[in-house]
Amino acid sequence: MKFHSINNVVIIGTGRVGSNLAKIFKDCGLQIIQIVGRNLLKAETIALKTGAHYTNKLNHIKTNADLYILAISDDAIAEVAGLMPVVKGLVVHTSGFKSIDVLPVHFKRRGVFYPLQTFSESRNPSFEEIPLFIQAINKEDQQILMELGKRLSNKVISTNDLQRKELHLAAVFVSNFSNAMYEIGAGLLKEFNLQFDYLRPLILETAHKACVLQPEDAQTGPARRNDIGTINLHLEMLSQKTELSTIYKDITSYILTKYHQKSL
Amino acid sequence: MKFHSINNVVIIGTGRVGSNLAKIFKDCGLQIIQIVGRNLLKAETIALKTGAHYTNKLNHIKTNADLYILAISDDAIAEVAGLMPVVKGLVVHTSGFKSIDVLPVHFKRRGVFYPLQTFSESRNPSFEEIPLFIQAINKEDQQILMELGKRLSNKVISTNDLQRKELHLAAVFVSNFSNAMYEIGAGLLKEFNLQFDYLRPLILETAHKACVLQPEDAQTGPARRNDIGTINLHLEMLSQKTELSTIYKDITSYILTKYHQKSL
Repeated sequence: MKFHSINNVVIIGTGRVGSNLAKIFKDCGLQIIQIVGRNLLKAETIALKTGAHYTNKLNHIKTNADLYILAISDDAIAEVAGLMPVVKGLVVHTSGFKSIDVLPVHFKRRGVFYPLQTFSESRNPSFEEIPLFIQAINKEDQQILMELGKRLSNKVISTNDLQRKELHLAAVFVSNFSNAMYEIGAGLLKEFNLQFDYLRPLILETAHKACVLQPEDAQTGPARRNDIGTINLHLEMLSQKTELSTIYKDITSYILTKYHQKSL
Repeated sequence: MKFHSINNVVIIGTGRVGSNLAKIFKDCGLQIIQIVGRNLLKAETIALKTGAHYTNKLNHIKTNADLYILAISDDAIAEVAGLMPVVKGLVVHTSGFKSIDVLPVHFKRRGVFYPLQTFSESRNPSFEEIPLFIQAINKEDQQILMELGKRLSNKVISTNDLQRKELHLAAVFVSNFSNAMYEIGAGLLKEFNLQFDYLRPLILETAHKACVLQPEDAQTGPARRNDIGTINLHLEMLSQKTELSTIYKDITSYILTKYHQKSL
């Protein structure tokens, strides 16, 4: 059997990852032949933008595509893939956390196509800079996915299940947890009748600074300065909020230990 | 006594805030008449860039300036201000956390000039967008500082001690603690022999997304999806790292409680 490079794609999943991938694939000149999603309205919206057909029925999936992208939640991958028709094309998921083996073995050509980014339906971050982690069961497919990746991004990296899990864990800290810190700050200001707007330049500069200087060197704040007086007064301000006090204490202890070899 | 607007400034402190303020004041056409700092080399460097005199002796501070800015650590403000010569000009500190009352009462004209931003000696974030919180003992000085602020920034806000403390607490979460999350992610990748570079686009997009969408709406990740399977596997990966497990559990519980009314 001869494997060709990827010319056309079926995208299964109409959420944040699926809608972003549909757009970027189309922009790169690939043909999106079908959008598949439970939510028919969403599937139609993406299909209209990309010139694709659309369906909400897994047994209506077209079987002649070069590539099938399962851009769905981790826990749904095995089930949805199991209900798809058997296809000759390459079937990949986009999960940072799930093993390649979650894809059923009746697909001979299996892979992973993991873009390390947080996607939103309303935003289209530039794909060129997004690191793309590639994996496949066989070498030819690995090569085919690497070539496809390079059409989309400047950073395409061959990877394995363990490395993806490690990347995903680090990503939870730098993205999901830092966003939780923003949300806590926004919540405090709301309670104090102050505007979240005030924090925006600080949030953006903190992120840019960490990326230029390395986060270890960019760390500032009371814990970095070992300023126990301010820390205690902050904890007084948070004394009625158990969850926030706990988070404040743990992160402060972490910084104190790292930079001053001491705990709270 | 007649109060004029600010034409010239003495800056006391040669760290991140002092060096940034010296640059921005000069760019706005103010005369920097003196830079004062313990570290004479740093004072000289900033003085050369701004055409100012410089000294490391508090009793050599020139007494004819319109404004004296104490851009020094919170705990040093009272002591350093106490050792300054008594001046007729307006004396302000730049702290988010310290009361205006930390300045000695023998200065008749006291105030606060708090830019809500994280500064680095090697970076000069655009000052126009930085919210500037202004406070003074008397109304005329409040007005004078507001006018000065408006020459530097589009967001100048009259404030009081309590509001500044509230802003400062929120700032610790969104800046110092989110940077700690970046540092944890970078540390994990280092341990896994993966590059921190991979996380940069994610960090930047997460920050931009939260600022555009509001952090509450931008939240993603296993806890936001109530994906207990992934959470437990992450905790297994962190089982040998007590501090990181604790931080992971606390923030995850916070997100689970907020979005799913449940805890870990």
